[in-house]
Amino acid sequence: MLNFNSADTLIELAFQEDIGIGDITTEATVPSSQKGIGTLLAKSDGVIAGLPVAERTFEKLDSGLVFTPFVIDGDAVNAGTPIGDVKGDAKTILIGERTALNFLQRLSGVATLTSQFVNAVTDYDVKIVDTRKTTPGWRAIQKYAVCVGGGHNHRFGLYDGVLIKDNHIVAAGGITQAIQRARLSAPHTVKIEVEVETMGQVNEALEVKADILLLDNMPLEMMKEVVQRVRNLAITEASGGITLDQVKDVAATGVDYISVGALTHSAMPMDISLTLTLIER
Amino acid sequence: MLNFNSADTLIELAFQEDIGIGDITTEATVPSSQKGIGTLLAKSDGVIAGLPVAERTFEKLDSGLVFTPFVIDGDAVNAGTPIGDVKGDAKTILIGERTALNFLQRLSGVATLTSQFVNAVTDYDVKIVDTRKTTPGWRAIQKYAVCVGGGHNHRFGLYDGVLIKDNHIVAAGGITQAIQRARLSAPHTVKIEVEVETMGQVNEALEVKADILLLDNMPLEMMKEVVQRVRNLAITEASGGITLDQVKDVAATGVDYISVGALTHSAMPMDISLTLTLIER
Amino acid sequence: MLNFNSADTLIELAFQEDIGIGDITTEATVPSSQKGIGTLLAKSDGVIAGLPVAERTFEKLDSGLVFTPFVIDGDAVNAGTPIGDVKGDAKTILIGERTALNFLQRLSGVATLTSQFVNAVTDYDVKIVDTRKTTPGWRAIQKYAVCVGGGHNHRFGLYDGVLIKDNHIVAAGGITQAIQRARLSAPHTVKIEVEVETMGQVNEALEVKADILLLDNMPLEMMKEVVQRVRNLAITEASGGITLDQVKDVAATGVDYISVGALTHSAMPMDISLTLTLIER
Amino acid sequence: MLNFNSADTLIELAFQEDIGIGDITTEATVPSSQKGIGTLLAKSDGVIAGLPVAERTFEKLDSGLVFTPFVIDGDAVNAGTPIGDVKGDAKTILIGERTALNFLQRLSGVATLTSQFVNAVTDYDVKIVDTRKTTPGWRAIQKYAVCVGGGHNHRFGLYDGVLIKDNHIVAAGGITQAIQRARLSAPHTVKIEVEVETMGQVNEALEVKADILLLDNMPLEMMKEVVQRVRNLAITEASGGITLDQVKDVAATGVDYISVGALTHSAMPMDISLTLTLIER
Amino acid sequence: MLNFNSADTLIELAFQEDIGIGDITTEATVPSSQKGIGTLLAKSDGVIAGLPVAERTFEKLDSGLVFTPFVIDGDAVNAGTPIGDVKGDAKTILIGERTALNFLQRLSGVATLTSQFVNAVTDYDVKIVDTRKTTPGWRAIQKYAVCVGGGHNHRFGLYDGVLIKDNHIVAAGGITQAIQRARLSAPHTVKIEVEVETMGQVNEALEVKADILLLDNMPLEMMKEVVQRVRNLAITEASGGITLDQVKDVAATGVDYISVGALTHSAMPMDISLTLTLIER
Amino acid sequence: MLNFNSADTLIELAFQEDIGIGDITTEATVPSSQKGIGTLLAKSDGVIAGLPVAERTFEKLDSGLVFTPFVIDGDAVNAGTPIGDVKGDAKTILIGERTALNFLQRLSGVATLTSQFVNAVTDYDVKIVDTRKTTPGWRAIQKYAVCVGGGHNHRFGLYDGVLIKDNHIVAAGGITQAIQRARLSAPHTVKIEVEVETMGQVNEALEVKADILLLDNMPLEMMKEVVQRVRNLAITEASGGITLDQVKDVAATGVDYISVGALTHSAMPMDISLTLTLIER
Repeated sequence: MLNFNSADTLIELAFQEDIGIGDITTEATVPSSQKGIGTLLAKSDGVIAGLPVAERTFEKLDSGLVFTPFVIDGDAVNAGTPIGDVKGDAKTILIGERTALNFLQRLSGVATLTSQFVNAVTDYDVKIVDTRKTTPGWRAIQKYAVCVGGGHNHRFGLYDGVLIKDNHIVAAGGITQAIQRARLSAPHTVKIEVEVETMGQVNEALEVKADILLLDNMPLEMMKEVVQRVRNLAITEASGGITLDQVKDVAATGVDYISVGALTHSAMPMDISLTLTLIER
Repeated sequence: MLNFNSADTLIELAFQEDIGIGDITTEATVPSSQKGIGTLLAKSDGVIAGLPVAERTFEKLDSGLVFTPFVIDGDAVNAGTPIGDVKGDAKTILIGERTALNFLQRLSGVATLTSQFVNAVTDYDVKIVDTRKTTPGWRAIQKYAVCVGGGHNHRFGLYDGVLIKDNHIVAAGGITQAIQRARLSAPHTVKIEVEVETMGQVNEALEVKADILLLDNMPLEMMKEVVQRVRNLAITEASGGITLDQVKDVAATGVDYISVGALTHSAMPMDISLTLTLIER
Repeated sequence: MLNFNSADTLIELAFQEDIGIGDITTEATVPSSQKGIGTLLAKSDGVIAGLPVAERTFEKLDSGLVFTPFVIDGDAVNAGTPIGDVKGDAKTILIGERTALNFLQRLSGVATLTSQFVNAVTDYDVKIVDTRKTTPGWRAIQKYAVCVGGGHNHRFGLYDGVLIKDNHIVAAGGITQAIQRARLSAPHTVKIEVEVETMGQVNEALEVKADILLLDNMPLEMMKEVVQRVRNLAITEASGGITLDQVKDVAATGVDYISVGALTHSAMPMDISLTLTLIER
Repeated sequence: MLNFNSADTLIELAFQEDIGIGDITTEATVPSSQKGIGTLLAKSDGVIAGLPVAERTFEKLDSGLVFTPFVIDGDAVNAGTPIGDVKGDAKTILIGERTALNFLQRLSGVATLTSQFVNAVTDYDVKIVDTRKTTPGWRAIQKYAVCVGGGHNHRFGLYDGVLIKDNHIVAAGGITQAIQRARLSAPHTVKIEVEVETMGQVNEALEVKADILLLDNMPLEMMKEVVQRVRNLAITEASGGITLDQVKDVAATGVDYISVGALTHSAMPMDISLTLTLIER
Repeated sequence: MLNFNSADTLIELAFQEDIGIGDITTEATVPSSQKGIGTLLAKSDGVIAGLPVAERTFEKLDSGLVFTPFVIDGDAVNAGTPIGDVKGDAKTILIGERTALNFLQRLSGVATLTSQFVNAVTDYDVKIVDTRKTTPGWRAIQKYAVCVGGGHNHRFGLYDGVLIKDNHIVAAGGITQAIQRARLSAPHTVKIEVEVETMGQVNEALEVKADILLLDNMPLEMMKEVVQRVRNLAITEASGGITLDQVKDVAATGVDYISVGALTHSAMPMDISLTLTLIER
Repeated sequence: MLNFNSADTLIELAFQEDIGIGDITTEATVPSSQKGIGTLLAKSDGVIAGLPVAERTFEKLDSGLVFTPFVIDGDAVNAGTPIGDVKGDAKTILIGERTALNFLQRLSGVATLTSQFVNAVTDYDVKIVDTRKTTPGWRAIQKYAVCVGGGHNHRFGLYDGVLIKDNHIVAAGGITQAIQRARLSAPHTVKIEVEVETMGQVNEALEVKADILLLDNMPLEMMKEVVQRVRNLAITEASGGITLDQVKDVAATGVDYISVGALTHSAMPMDISLTLTLIER
């Protein structure tokens, strides 16, 4: 479910930076009484995400605009598919157009890329999850788009999951100490994930009952061995710049989760346009 | 110059979403007294942008951290180049790392892509400018990154420039009426830009003294003709999904400006990492 | 068009400072069930501005209040004219009265003074424009009131127009350098205005194609000469403490624009009262 | 004492509306290394108020600017008197100039007008107080300026004093009921003021021990009688559009307080300028 | 009357800290179409306060929820009494439950304790008032709950009443000086209260016409003497850790007001639960 | 570690509600040049929590005040122990006193009560944890105070831990379905806790590998049986109105965690005072 709090904050920021004290072009050229219909059209293939954000954008700008989605978030559409329209005052449709598209194109881009990763591993019992490599300010809605595209969410931030990386291990004096300290101070409601690089570390982590092992940039062969060693004693998660080309091979190692930063940092925007039709007054 | 207002807003949003009530891993594993040095390293070639934002991120998190840039925004660096470091409390370096990188990678990505466009047209007297296709909330810092990469800024938003597009022309009843109305109501301090699609529209726009003609998705041959017709009677600007491959040909038509949405919507993040070295206590 | 963002911010500030935790007088003395009609009455002649702000003030305080304007912003009314009323809960009418009047009187004052300047120059093809000498926090609504009074707006702030004054010229090393630098760095969508004091500066500014010449505190004779020299090579704008008595003579010089700080810094509030009639319960 | 909270809010609003994403003129024309001194000069006679707000404006814009006041708030100065200067980066002095002056001129205007009222009644034991007819958002700093000019403050808003006006009396069913209800529900720490129009009402108000009697728009003769009737049984306060010409006669009636809306709604701004001198680099 | 501004601020803070990006349990387990009725039940005897806050909590979370109070604020209820219900989407009822209860239980606790103090002194002509010992952020709603419980409010904060304590007396150089200075600088609309410890101070305070005498931690015998000395020359207020056991004896001294910090700092929460019944879909 | 974000928000709210436009008593009576030392004194036995919040309160009010703690958060002190002092401007010490105490007394109250629970179960290998029954707006600092008192934190809110209660079970159609759905949709980084009431439910929950079993209001005998059945297959947590008298018996059942709502909803404030000593000027 999309929590709208962060979307609302971004919509307000977008209006502040784009509209400021007003659209001096539209004010000058479009009569106040002019009505119109703006139709959103997919211009490339992709998975749509963000229609509720687009709707909210228009609604916050002008509560008189009526937004009608033709598809729902998560639908895969082909280029040429109309995906929704907005009816009402032609002025405010024009004023909100760019902001609505700026959200919709980027979120659909994330959903589309996620769905490509998910589709690449359908033969395996593995989940594609996101990372914290999100656009500052956009974490909630990008993570929403990942779900829309069929992916799952990793922890939201630094506060809702323990993820012990190499630096933490060094600072704590070893995996055992790091995990024990985390177990002592973190809420008992979160799992403890630890990055492991060698089979020795894997064994040490299992010894102190780590809940999740992070296999970062690990060669596939070794990853496979680790998975076999771990069995159901812990959850395994692969990560490290995994591309669409590589993801199937990673999945084949038997890991439970594959986390992919690219979902939120390298998704191209989906091409979506808005065409305005003026309505006879 | 980077105006930090919007950067500050985004840094705060980033901290809210990433840190929340605290980094439960770092709190548990890294001793309070542990000092460290985090070194930022370029892992791909590119033009750096956003070092002041990264600095500000660390500074706002912990005023005791000392950030030292080794290059400045706008410098082109090769993969492997250290671009700065941050010294101080190891805990807060770890807590701020991801947020600082999330800014630095994306802004450097924009500067890098911009510089590629700018370099592609160095043989021509033309400027590469951005558009309003920016990430909501990020307009000011993305437009800053465009400048850092050698590009120029188009109007900031809907309020500081008149840009009459096809819909405005239809609503106003023609180019002449649209321009006249804009001249009457917009501040006399902004120029009037109008989208033209035919030579007839070009002539009409020149007749009523449009300041800038926008040639959107115009075939190159026609663009060349328009430029020759316009001469110095107005400024010419080309736009419309222009790619790095095409931009030189567009420049060859003689247009004054080329606006490129991709600068801010399709730049890949530059690969930059932070490596922490713990310092003997 | 009035953009309500800044009005809303001021209304909230007004409520914070005026109402705080409640109107202890009205709470004590007016029964909760008491209904009333508050009638707004012009007590001096003037041009009304700010009815939508007054309406919004009452509406934000109590969504049950119904505000009915009898005139619209821009109407010139005589003393004694009822200009609107507000019906509903007598308590909230009394609580909102002072805030609504504080807005309405000041904005109508600006519109009234503007209309006096505009009326003084109706024989000339010149526009009266405002300045940045506005009440901090009130720029958007004061500039709206200037339009309501028949004036036009100069640039909104420092970001949407280039205005090169004497200090900028000295710092840049001359008019030519200042204009060239501005052309290089400012968006190509804004015009370049430059303050000129001598005919030599006028010639220099025209040479480098300044878009607008600002004639600040220039003697009328010289202003006339400058206007004749400039012809349609640039726009001319007069400024400098121009009073209602002087404005016609300034207009007679042939300048295109006259900017008047007094519109927003020296307008007396229009006298407007609210009379409450209690309605039988 | 000036509480800076509301000043800070207004300074931020002022920067938002004036500076936005930057001063495109100053950025283009003034070198980053250029230093300067801006000198504030009184250009008319008046009582200065707001120097701390001007200082804070420059300081918030650029913590490197050094502001030095030559006089203090409350000093009466003649035209031609330098009242302070600001040294540092020439760019930020130019950017902050207009905002600082917009505050200083308006607040000094309020202090100057207040001092004129106060000086007019020095022969009498009476205090000049302000009203709630303040500029929305500016109440705290305008009331501060009233004190600076030698006046006193009435209640700050609707929550820190009971003031029963005609409408409250009617709604409550009479002066006696209104005062009794107020005594029952308002905190026992605030006084009860009531508007009286006839000697009967005066007697009734004294009977139920009103603390303060408001004599609004009362003829001078009657006011004198009321004052004699009241003696020290209550405090008396005159109000109602009292002008500088009339205030001495009102004081002569023997009232304790005279409240004057004009102090905050009709003060002309004091003429103050800032002259920038560039410093050799 | 409850002013909702501060309640709204706290509700938003509560949602931020409790809900964050979503209720991951409810999202996972409760179908989106599931409807329900949540019934609020008093599980201990007490005076209900905060139903409008609970209503607002649900309403702000989900405008589709319908809240129906069965009693009103101020009603004394027995354990086992249903006090209201909320109908609608089962998900949002579950999400809002804890926040609504966190408000309702604490505010009802304040009202309940206040009513116990009020009931203990019904035989005397004395009012129970609160203090500034409130939970930071909660002053307005706790003071509201005090009124709901039959108590009265002391000054709201430091700005709407003069209360001269021992430190102020020492700093000013004595009671006489302290009161005279306060009379000079505080608005004439507030009363002057002064803490007195000896009969000499009582006499001194009466001499300079203090409005209210605060008898802090004064032995009962002396308090009685002071009350007799003061008669109607001033208002008397007792304070100082007065407990429910002692309050009747304090009232018997004849003081006008008894201020009790415990009302807002030591009230136990009332036990109230919410039971959800799922409705057949 | 105390994250100051929420403390800062509350401090600002406290200043807004308490100080508003100024302390009219202190302004009138205490000379601007007066210096002082305010000494914080414990007046009852307890565990101190919140000294950094008190320090921050004074510092935000007046950066010139110097706060020196004599003990640290978590120290158990006896009545009569000085716990810190604040030196500087006597005025601002007096203005900040009440707010600082309002925080310090409440947070120390939470730490004190927590330490009593913790001390009661020192003979057992069990942890005392808090709940979501916190004061709206105060969650972060109350949970901090729980840690200071020796307790541990449960999940922070609804977003960082899955806790399946009876209603969720019913809505999902059973424990098995509820847990499976939660496992599918919640991040894999959080544990799944489920409320169980019967041994059948315990078995079902273990079957689907619940991570934590919540034993709410369960009779001690049954709790003991459940603990023995569960062994190390899951974590066990007892809850349900457990008092200081009962907690040792609950611990004796062998549960791993005991969650206690009273820690944050029923802690009495610790009695702490501030005594001001004026310093010779």
